[in-house]
Amino acid sequence: MKIGWIGTGVMGASMAGHLQKAGHGLSVFSRTRKKAAGLLDKGARWYDSPAEVAANSEIVFTIVGLPEDVREVYLGDNGILSRETACSIVVDMTTSQPSLAKIIFEESAKRGIESLDAPVSGGDVGARDAKLAIMVGGKKEVFEKVLPLFRLMGPTISHMGGPGAGQHTKVANQVLVAGNMIGACECLVYATKQGLDMQQVIDIVGKGAASSWAINILGPRVVKGDFGPGFFVEHFIKDMKIALEESAAVGLSLPGLALVQQLYIAVKAQGHSRSGTQALFLALQALNGEG
Amino acid sequence: MKIGWIGTGVMGASMAGHLQKAGHGLSVFSRTRKKAAGLLDKGARWYDSPAEVAANSEIVFTIVGLPEDVREVYLGDNGILSRETACSIVVDMTTSQPSLAKIIFEESAKRGIESLDAPVSGGDVGARDAKLAIMVGGKKEVFEKVLPLFRLMGPTISHMGGPGAGQHTKVANQVLVAGNMIGACECLVYATKQGLDMQQVIDIVGKGAASSWAINILGPRVVKGDFGPGFFVEHFIKDMKIALEESAAVGLSLPGLALVQQLYIAVKAQGHSRSGTQALFLALQALNGEG
Repeated sequence: MKIGWIGTGVMGASMAGHLQKAGHGLSVFSRTRKKAAGLLDKGARWYDSPAEVAANSEIVFTIVGLPEDVREVYLGDNGILSRETACSIVVDMTTSQPSLAKIIFEESAKRGIESLDAPVSGGDVGARDAKLAIMVGGKKEVFEKVLPLFRLMGPTISHMGGPGAGQHTKVANQVLVAGNMIGACECLVYATKQGLDMQQVIDIVGKGAASSWAINILGPRVVKGDFGPGFFVEHFIKDMKIALEESAAVGLSLPGLALVQQLYIAVKAQGHSRSGTQALFLALQALNGEG
Repeated sequence: MKIGWIGTGVMGASMAGHLQKAGHGLSVFSRTRKKAAGLLDKGARWYDSPAEVAANSEIVFTIVGLPEDVREVYLGDNGILSRETACSIVVDMTTSQPSLAKIIFEESAKRGIESLDAPVSGGDVGARDAKLAIMVGGKKEVFEKVLPLFRLMGPTISHMGGPGAGQHTKVANQVLVAGNMIGACECLVYATKQGLDMQQVIDIVGKGAASSWAINILGPRVVKGDFGPGFFVEHFIKDMKIALEESAAVGLSLPGLALVQQLYIAVKAQGHSRSGTQALFLALQALNGEG
């Protein structure tokens, strides 16, 4: 199949690589050409814009940074939808706005193109090992057409509803993560302040009704003083901003999420925007005159 | 061994039953005698006060309700420490104040009695199935003496440090739970408000980096409209009150915990004090003019 791929960052390069490995021909564009080098070396063709990628592909996948980037890639001057194209399906895998996913769906439909929103979770490791969870919004029959390609990227794939439903599911995922992160980091700040051994606390609380991925996977990194990403603080702030905007848009107040987002703005203000999300621990210590 | 057991509520009766089954003689007292009926039927002896239980036991375990109850059972007029006793070790398994655990340790020591604080997690099911996690504070050599008895109640047992360290670990556990609960309930409120199927969301977000016991075990109860306990809202409020007091006492601000406690006070105000902690979902819906 002739596949277009736009966005070859740490996630995108791995995901596109799985499609390439399965024998699909790739046409690629990325903001930074050198990040596509691995794919180009293995035979992918480079094009200078999203529009040119689309003109040479049956289906185009995108995974870029911010909603503004998604908008540019689809609706900008050299965007996928800017001119006549051979492409019949577009799939945005960026974590982006549900409302923008609906706009792209509608704009695509006007041009006879099918559109899915399909953000993922599982991070760089999940992308590399083809272990992503993929949450998909759009028409069921289009979902089914793309499913064999999704299966090359991860084992957990779910059609969540119409346009935007994939993005809404990812938002719900990040709302959950926000709570888990404040719980894990406040737990560890409390434990160390009260003279407990943090790793010993993780070992016991991480097994029962308090357990979470956050405490069991990120907790030990805090213990070791490892605040590298993982998942960037600045990306998490973007996701929480989307979540708060989409909530407010339907008249939904989420006080826990709002507080956590404010605290992550503090994490960023302290110079940790390119740290991993476990750096919330450092911000809580700073809040308490420590660290 | 001659064992005293004070407090035969839903947790205590199961835990004492495991000791009895292993062949230990039990002397019991509880505020409500009929809750001890199962143990008495199998040969436990009833006494009319904690002091009398202690007078007839080598070691006494307690698991009662509130810190006030713990104080009364140890330091009250007919308390364990109110008179001469044969008992050489006392073990409080109530989730209670670390600071009170230290007082009991000191008051016990004055009388030549060893003391451990050993709160548990795992709930009524963990107690029944001897699957509790037990977090222990006090002297290491005393911990080791009691260890064979702890092993009859659960597989995960950890000596966390000196007097109060068991309670501090349980506090840390509840701080973690607080974050996990706000994350899980806000996730579900968002999901349903945006028209997603809540169970389908749980199925996908509960497998990856957003996963927690709260979303995977309590989430499906929310989906079914099952808000029964589980773990009582009023007990969780008590635990968070202890956590906030013990934090403030050492100059520690935990904004996430404070918010969650306020929201649970709202859950209680809405008439859910004897519901399970997943009733936070209902309070968040009410906050948003729904449900």
